[in-house]
Parts: sequence; C-alpha cells; structure tokens
Amino acid sequence: MPISDRIEAAIGAALAHASGADAPRLLAGSLGHAVLPGGARIRPTILMSVARACGEDRPALSDAAAAALELIHCASLVHDDLPCFDDADTRRGKPSVHRAYSEPLAVLAGDSLIVLAFDVLTRAGEADAGRALRLMGLLARQTGMPHGICAGQGWESEAKIDLAAYHRAKTGALFVAATQMGAVAAGHEPEPWHDLGALIGEAFQVADDLRDALMDEESLGKPVGQDDLHGRPNAVAELGVEGAVARLGDILAGAIASIPSCPGEAALAAMVRAQAERIVPKLPARTAV
Amino acid sequence: MPISDRIEAAIGAALAHASGADAPRLLAGSLGHAVLPGGARIRPTILMSVARACGEDRPALSDAAAAALELIHCASLVHDDLPCFDDADTRRGKPSVHRAYSEPLAVLAGDSLIVLAFDVLTRAGEADAGRALRLMGLLARQTGMPHGICAGQGWESEAKIDLAAYHRAKTGALFVAATQMGAVAAGHEPEPWHDLGALIGEAFQVADDLRDALMDEESLGKPVGQDDLHGRPNAVAELGVEGAVARLGDILAGAIASIPSCPGEAALAAMVRAQAERIVPKLPARTAV
Repeated sequence: MPISDRIEAAIGAALAHASGADAPRLLAGSLGHAVLPGGARIRPTILMSVARACGEDRPALSDAAAAALELIHCASLVHDDLPCFDDADTRRGKPSVHRAYSEPLAVLAGDSLIVLAFDVLTRAGEADAGRALRLMGLLARQTGMPHGICAGQGWESEAKIDLAAYHRAKTGALFVAATQMGAVAAGHEPEPWHDLGALIGEAFQVADDLRDALMDEESLGKPVGQDDLHGRPNAVAELGVEGAVARLGDILAGAIASIPSCPGEAALAAMVRAQAERIVPKLPARTAV
Repeated sequence: MPISDRIEAAIGAALAHASGADAPRLLAGSLGHAVLPGGARIRPTILMSVARACGEDRPALSDAAAAALELIHCASLVHDDLPCFDDADTRRGKPSVHRAYSEPLAVLAGDSLIVLAFDVLTRAGEADAGRALRLMGLLARQTGMPHGICAGQGWESEAKIDLAAYHRAKTGALFVAATQMGAVAAGHEPEPWHDLGALIGEAFQVADDLRDALMDEESLGKPVGQDDLHGRPNAVAELGVEGAVARLGDILAGAIASIPSCPGEAALAAMVRAQAERIVPKLPARTAV
C-alpha cells in the first residue's frame, strides 16, 4: 500500500475511535474538520519514509506513529488559528475550526487531538510496549515544554526571543519527531536521525517565510502576511527573496547529506528531494530573478 | 512518606522537567501558576490510596500516575476558565492563568500540561513498559474523546445533551481514572475499580452543585453561580438543597460498599469517608434544616 494511503487509513481509524455514536456530535465533527481532508501530510510521510528506509519490521507501529504525529500537527493548527493567536478565518481553503464550529469547540478539538495522538500509540503498543513508549517519549518531547511546538509558540510571548530556540521548537520540533519516530518505529536508535529532521524543519521554515511573503491568500488557503503582522522573525526579511531561496537550497543539500547509512538510503534521499519540490514556492513572475 | 508529600514531589519533578533554564519564561511561569499551590489534590490522593490498598509494589509508577492525573486536571481548569468558556477571573483564590499571564499563554499552558502528563508516564515506564502503557491508555480514555473530560465539556455545545453521558464524562471520568490507574499502577486489573471512581465522581458533582448554589465567591475562590449562568444541569435545581444533600450521602455509602476486596480495603474506606467530609459543603446557617 502506498505511504499516503497508509497515512489516511491510520488517521481515519484514529478519528473513528474518537467519534463513536455516543460522542458529542459537534465536537466529533470538529475533529474531522480539523484533520480531513489533510494538507500535504509532510510530517507523517517523512516518518513513514524513514521507517521504510530503516527496514520497517512493525508496520502497525509506524502507522500509529504517523497518525499520532499528524494529529498533533493538526491540533497545533487549530489552536494557532484561534482569535487570541493568528485569528485566522481560513485554513487549507476552508473555514478554520473556530469559524466553522465555535471557539470553545476549537479549544476542545485541539485538546482532544493531542490526547488522541497518545491514545493511538498506546493502543498500537500492545505488540511492543517498549518501542511504543519510546515513540511517545519522542512525541511528547517535540510537542510540549520546554522544547516542543508549545514552547515554540510560547516564545512569541517573550519580550526577548531566543531566536534559535524559537525556530527549533516552533517548526523544527515536529520534523525531528518525524525522522526520529520513523527510526524508532523500525527498531533503530533515534539520535542519528536528529539532524535530518532538524534540517528539513529549517528548510520548511524558510519555504514558509517565502510563501508568506510572496503569495496571495487564494493560492495559500490561509491569510497571508501573518509573520509581518505579528512581528515574527522571518528569513525573507533577513535575507531578501533571492537570499532566502539560496539558503533553502543549501539547507536541503545538507539534509540529504545527513541521511544516516541504512538499507533504503537512496530512496529516502529521493523522497526528501520530492518533498523539497513541493515546499519550494512557485515564485510569481514579478519576483523572478 | 505521606501521600500528600509524594504527590507534591511528583508534580514538582514534572514541572521542573518542563521548565528548564532554556524554556520560554512566561509559559514556564504559567505552568507553575496553573499547578502550584494545588487545590485538595483529591484525584491523585484517591489514586495513591487505591495503589496502596492494592499492595503498591512500584511506587515510582504510582507517583507518576498521580502527577499525570493532576496535571490533566489542572490543564482542564486552565482551559475551562478561558473567556470562551467560563470567563473566570479567579481560580483557587488567585487570578486565573489567562488573567495572570494572557489568553495565548493559557491556551499553551493547558496544551503543555496535557503533553507533560503523558511525558511523565513515558519516563516512569522504563521499569515496566507494559504497566505504563496501560496507565496511559486509561488516562487517554478518561481525558479525550469520546468519553473523557474533553467530551464532557463538548456536550455543553450540543443543542440536546445526553445528561448521563455528560455527567459521566465531565466529572466522573477523572475519578474513574484515579481508581483504575491506582489499581493498574499496583499491578491489579482496572475493571473492578470502575464503580468506586464513578460513584466518587457522582458525589463530587453533587457536592460541587451544592457549593455552586450556596457559597459566596470569597469562600469558593472562584466565581459562583456558573452553572445557573450557563444553563448547565444541576442536582440542586433538580432535587432542592435537602434532596441533594441526601443524595450525596447515598452515593458515598454506595461508593464505600463498592470497594473491591484488597489488602487495604479498610484503610481505603476510611480515606473515602475523609474525602467525603472535605467535599460536603458546610451549609450556611440560612439553609440549615
């Protein structure tokens, strides 16, 4: 089964578990709205690709890890869109959860998705409790405090931002989770996979900055110029468009060079290149150089 | 070491882990504000008491389970106090987290505490991965969708509320988690411990309704009359004060009768009686009968 089908099946199974007939309907609906149809599913795709490259021996664990990671990502989008953060009316081309449902339901949907992520891994752990626990430890580390995406968002409330810590936590964390959880799901050690995740995360941040600076709201499916509006640090502001594009290329080359020796090394390098093609924004004509 | 000291030590260790020197200061501060000094710590006290009654053989696991459960409870209070829910200015006699810090930090503090709860159990699981996984499964079930406290809060957004499901999830869930996690931490099966938790939860709900209907804001440390204000179902509205007090007594008697056979059965019954004394509100003179 292609990776993308496995990811959707795993996410669908998790949602079904959380949204039984005896669940409150609106909150159940808001979970589906937050998660389906998905975006590019980049993080779980990386996770699955690393697991395969490591000679995946327990596909049920990689499936659960991929679903859990994407659920955390979706939870963070729901909460980031709230009025007290980005106050975003749209996400992935449709109304944000708090617009489609309500603010209380958006808070609860985010909370429920975080819990569901750990729940999915708990249930998948019956066959290998030790590996499931390690997966949950990695996911918790890259989600919560002091180094996960919650911390990343938390830095935006500080008068003085530690920029390196901010970027590492805000965007890098879930990519490090992706590569390390992929390795652990397949029985490998997580440490050698740290740099690949961190570099992909950096590339993604620069690509996002470029998109945020250059594209219009219709193509992006969410409000543009948010970084500028909220005074957040931004690679385009720092390096200009050309500089940021060059930096993106360097980071991706470094990412591919960092892939640890493993049975599926070449295929994994091809996947990173393919993801890179997706994340590098198509520059509008006026900015072509 | 007395149970209360073990609980505070376990919570303190969890907070220290989440609030290292490289964490964003305000978010780290908001976690402490949400969790310390605590309320009565009723849920972790019940958990520890059940673990002891079951002949606790892995105290590190009960400590972690108790801390995790209280962190989830505190997370739910932080999010419930938000402007889009109860819009509460105070909690436990001090400003609510969003008042003391900000609304974004309150959302993030709740999220971080949920993640920290699972993280604590992950780290405690090194000695016994299987038991830790079961603890996480119980905690996830009673926290998220479709049956946990998130679902309970979600019912309040429904046009037609399933009252039994609402009460079970909103207040009962974390008490069921308390008794079942206590049993599992000590290597016992969770099922026989369900009813004790559910009945304590019911008693707590009735006691809370009585407090909400009768007490003033200063004694309560949070705004009163919230149920009435938000049109939520309430035992006092249904049975009157006298009827609700009688019902509370019946439920507590049932709770004590439901305690499964175990080495520390008598001590556990005494603990439930002691907790009952704490939760039954001291009625003001004008309502004495």
